[in-house]
Amino acid sequence: MSLLENIRGPRDLKALDGEELTDLAEEIRHFLVHAVARTGGHLGPNLGVVELTIALHRSFDSPSDRILWDTGHQSYVHKLLTGRQDFSKLRGKGGLSGYPSREESEHDVIENSHASTVLGWADGLAKANQVLGRWNDHVVAVIGDGALTGGMAWEALNNIAAAKDRRLIIVVNDNERSYAPTIGGLADHLATLRTTDGYERALSWGKDAIQGLPLVGKPLYESLHGAKKGFKDAFAPQGMFEDLGLKYLGPIDGHDIAAVESALRRAKRFHGPVLVHCRTEKGRGYQPALRDEADRFHTVGAMNPLTCEPLAPPAGRSWTSVFGDEMVRIGAERPDVVAITAAMLDPVGLTKFATAYPDRVWDVGIAEQHGAVSAAGLATGGLHPVFAVYATFLNRAFDQVLMDVALHKCGVTFVLDRAGVTGTDGPSHNGMWDMSILQVVPGLRIAAPRDADQLRAQLREAVEVEDAPTVVRFPKENVGESIPAVGRTGGMDVLARPADTDGADVLLVAVGAMARVALDAADLLGARGTSCTVVDPRWVKPVDPALPPLAARHRVVAVVEDNSRAGGVGWAVAQALRDADVDLPVRTFGIPEQFLAHAKRSEVLADVGLTPAEIAGRISAVLARDEERAKAEEKETSRA
Amino acid sequence: MSLLENIRGPRDLKALDGEELTDLAEEIRHFLVHAVARTGGHLGPNLGVVELTIALHRSFDSPSDRILWDTGHQSYVHKLLTGRQDFSKLRGKGGLSGYPSREESEHDVIENSHASTVLGWADGLAKANQVLGRWNDHVVAVIGDGALTGGMAWEALNNIAAAKDRRLIIVVNDNERSYAPTIGGLADHLATLRTTDGYERALSWGKDAIQGLPLVGKPLYESLHGAKKGFKDAFAPQGMFEDLGLKYLGPIDGHDIAAVESALRRAKRFHGPVLVHCRTEKGRGYQPALRDEADRFHTVGAMNPLTCEPLAPPAGRSWTSVFGDEMVRIGAERPDVVAITAAMLDPVGLTKFATAYPDRVWDVGIAEQHGAVSAAGLATGGLHPVFAVYATFLNRAFDQVLMDVALHKCGVTFVLDRAGVTGTDGPSHNGMWDMSILQVVPGLRIAAPRDADQLRAQLREAVEVEDAPTVVRFPKENVGESIPAVGRTGGMDVLARPADTDGADVLLVAVGAMARVALDAADLLGARGTSCTVVDPRWVKPVDPALPPLAARHRVVAVVEDNSRAGGVGWAVAQALRDADVDLPVRTFGIPEQFLAHAKRSEVLADVGLTPAEIAGRISAVLARDEERAKAEEKETSRA
Repeated sequence: MSLLENIRGPRDLKALDGEELTDLAEEIRHFLVHAVARTGGHLGPNLGVVELTIALHRSFDSPSDRILWDTGHQSYVHKLLTGRQDFSKLRGKGGLSGYPSREESEHDVIENSHASTVLGWADGLAKANQVLGRWNDHVVAVIGDGALTGGMAWEALNNIAAAKDRRLIIVVNDNERSYAPTIGGLADHLATLRTTDGYERALSWGKDAIQGLPLVGKPLYESLHGAKKGFKDAFAPQGMFEDLGLKYLGPIDGHDIAAVESALRRAKRFHGPVLVHCRTEKGRGYQPALRDEADRFHTVGAMNPLTCEPLAPPAGRSWTSVFGDEMVRIGAERPDVVAITAAMLDPVGLTKFATAYPDRVWDVGIAEQHGAVSAAGLATGGLHPVFAVYATFLNRAFDQVLMDVALHKCGVTFVLDRAGVTGTDGPSHNGMWDMSILQVVPGLRIAAPRDADQLRAQLREAVEVEDAPTVVRFPKENVGESIPAVGRTGGMDVLARPADTDGADVLLVAVGAMARVALDAADLLGARGTSCTVVDPRWVKPVDPALPPLAARHRVVAVVEDNSRAGGVGWAVAQALRDADVDLPVRTFGIPEQFLAHAKRSEVLADVGLTPAEIAGRISAVLARDEERAKAEEKETSRA
Repeated sequence: MSLLENIRGPRDLKALDGEELTDLAEEIRHFLVHAVARTGGHLGPNLGVVELTIALHRSFDSPSDRILWDTGHQSYVHKLLTGRQDFSKLRGKGGLSGYPSREESEHDVIENSHASTVLGWADGLAKANQVLGRWNDHVVAVIGDGALTGGMAWEALNNIAAAKDRRLIIVVNDNERSYAPTIGGLADHLATLRTTDGYERALSWGKDAIQGLPLVGKPLYESLHGAKKGFKDAFAPQGMFEDLGLKYLGPIDGHDIAAVESALRRAKRFHGPVLVHCRTEKGRGYQPALRDEADRFHTVGAMNPLTCEPLAPPAGRSWTSVFGDEMVRIGAERPDVVAITAAMLDPVGLTKFATAYPDRVWDVGIAEQHGAVSAAGLATGGLHPVFAVYATFLNRAFDQVLMDVALHKCGVTFVLDRAGVTGTDGPSHNGMWDMSILQVVPGLRIAAPRDADQLRAQLREAVEVEDAPTVVRFPKENVGESIPAVGRTGGMDVLARPADTDGADVLLVAVGAMARVALDAADLLGARGTSCTVVDPRWVKPVDPALPPLAARHRVVAVVEDNSRAGGVGWAVAQALRDADVDLPVRTFGIPEQFLAHAKRSEVLADVGLTPAEIAGRISAVLARDEERAKAEEKETSRA
């Protein structure tokens, strides 16, 4: 591993010759397979950009030139080349992030890990270079073909193309996939571009061919050449990028370091916005990945790198699979139920539904806005769409949920996977804001099932609602054991209550998957002689009308949720109590207002105090304070 | 006005001959100018689509065919032709909405009035037609060239182009403007298309011209014809729409009813996705609008239709102009301060800044996501961007504010105009959710100035913050008189307090422009013998640490805000009190969870109870309840 170990920064790359670069690429691939197999992480995308990353760092001077990675899960090679070779705790607490991270390196800029943003960042950085007179600094944005299906990419291209005098280079990392194969008109167009020869070659061939024609050759050439772009397109369709006004170079073999470097040199000479179209292969060089047509080992868990057997086989069922199976059953009963995914058919559990009902499922690309708006259209047209999406990505369609789905009273069900704390993917992947921002949406209803049975039941309740949006949200990882109800009040399940009364010291409101934590907190409190009722509201928005009268028979109310404390269920419950003139102490246990660093889900929950001990302790403190005050008041009264 | 009066529905249009149609168009224009002059409303956009709308309703059968209007401010002609000719209370309480409205008519589908959504709706409706076997029903989406700059349009085009078997017709209403002239690579491309002859004509000319060449004509034609799209583009560049896989027809003169109908007939015969490119003129037929290069009378207030003098000249200054003037001063002092608008330079008050510093302002198109993301890039590049945008439109960039600006600790200032209740534009234009959804964004700070002095001061404080996003929000209409502070506690201004103490019965927390309402409520309470402190927190997020200890010296806390009650400042204040163990009754006065029908701002505020009388009444009720309880407890204690 001598070559890689000697690369302390991008500068060291520039001394290597062609053969050494090939060896280095080989070393990096070997490193990636073995390192990622140990910890789990993004494998396929990184194997695809080994040569591209080497060529980029040899062609530019980071960090004064800005090399930007869209989404960022393909930045492992970049990390290796910028002084970060300890992958032993990748994505784990205290280890390297799975995405670029400004804390880790001055070579990292964007750490949002939501797709399609890089061109907007590049536009802003290039504008800043222009305003501040940094004429020699380049901005280089690497974006996948999949990410180009996102609307933000379009908005940025429209702006970038308009400014001819900014040094901005777009590298399209075209592997014909995002997570899964890329869809839509753009994918077809890129396929057309891929089948053409490089532009310059075709141009020179066309010129010779036509000028060589007897009699008409020269005038015809000149007439075609004079046309706006007719001549170029007649022989080598440059397509929509040149239509928009961007210089296009490509297609380039993204695994040929010299070819990529040559294209980047030409791009630099252009002194304006250029798009370099590189073809790469996801999973390159690792047979098991290449054989996996579904996603080319986009992400893997810890595994044996030779057999690809998981090191720790998953115990139990995932929430996702419970949803996926129930969708197939619902699909059989309800021909009007259709499904939408934003480029993540399998990760959101819709593969079985797609197999059973291929004409009733649509992959809209990395396009959550379109997912939501087209769902409003589908509902208005008489169907019931279920849009299954990671909770963090629904943030991108907030306005569409509000203005298109809810304002028009459309029966659309949003199924939010990876809600709450996801952990190892870091701050951008936690689905901890959905129950806050969706609180404001008039008419929308949110279900937070606590177990597999509830997920099935509430999904069915959700698709029955035809005049308002519904949301069903559940976390990553495995669904735990069933938690039976011991009673029902209003629409809420009572999970625990003191044997001899319907009031108690504490009312614990347990949201979704936090039911187990709330029950354990109740046990701790019970052991201290504090009586508790634990209730699962099932539908957390709107607040069940039975909740305030129930709360009134307790001394303290506590709400436990794996969502931001700001604006979440706790706040909504507190408001419902105020509106009912129930002015009791309320305590809300959720995620504090901060971005959460990557670590295991359980580690994060413990760090933010979402543990039975912490919850029980804080509730006890409120009760103790009130008892002391009561005593003090009593003393005061008896004195008076 | 005989022709127009006899049009009860689209069917009546089909009996008219060419001359009658011309007369009808004339009548409609006359009607529009005079009707909109009376009430105010969108004028320029509607004058531009008179013929287009007539042709659409003659060519299709609404409502089984769906005619969809992007944004919807150009739907007045559509209203006139679908049985709605009483414009006397347009945009007023109980009158016609300024946008399509499902309540008004079965011919209306989309009422969101946020741009760029129509293609997504069309995709969903066409998919529903396909699944349900409605093979003869068309979906027709009318979208402006400006709205095509929005990312959602791109996401939808990518999906629409992929499905060759759905009957979906996109009509591009190309007037070279959104509110103001359209910008970017797309605008340049549309300009190219506009300068070409119609496709079929050019194609047939090209074929004849080449085949007529001696010797090489025929083989050359066949070789070009065989190229993927080379031949077409050599003579009539179809451009990016055909690149994407959409059939393109155009450009068509959108004021020639027969030409538009002919194009729509051809589009219908195609049985797949077609784009019909119509050129129109905003403000057509009304000289004062045509002379107005800024926005072609996009929206007008009530005015004399001949002189264009406003009927009621505005009294006082608008919040917008206070912001605009202060930006010019800040720009002079701070060369790093730059500005961004999403296609609304003048309405958000940036015209003077753009005149003074033309190289430091960017119109990004109808592209709020790009506005926010490119701002993150600008900030990272060393500048301080101020993105001025209507509050309702920032909802479209929520994920970018969170993941790009806040996660990266970028010093970006968002100036939210039209925050709170806007009124006459109806449910989609109220800026009543910003203080809720932004509550969850870690590190973000929100200023709600109460008057012009505070707006100036807080804008300056905002642009000083370099490590977090800041928001300054203010309402539509005029800024009122200055409201002086009588004291200061923490960072908060005390606006009123009892003379002899620093505690009182009631603490009123007055958010921004609601300060006057809160002060008046305090006066009403004072007259009843209830003492009040009124405090303006100035920065409403984060909650000032001085607030809980101040609150603890009162019996009741009331928060008054022109924002959704769900998740707003009231909820945040309540949480801050709980976190400080201050368990007092809190009452929140804001906008209930509902969409607000169009009416004047003052009417809406009264309807939702944001009046001094209502607020004072409800606070008195809480105080009375607590007094009764205290008496009852006393009795209880004395009995014991």
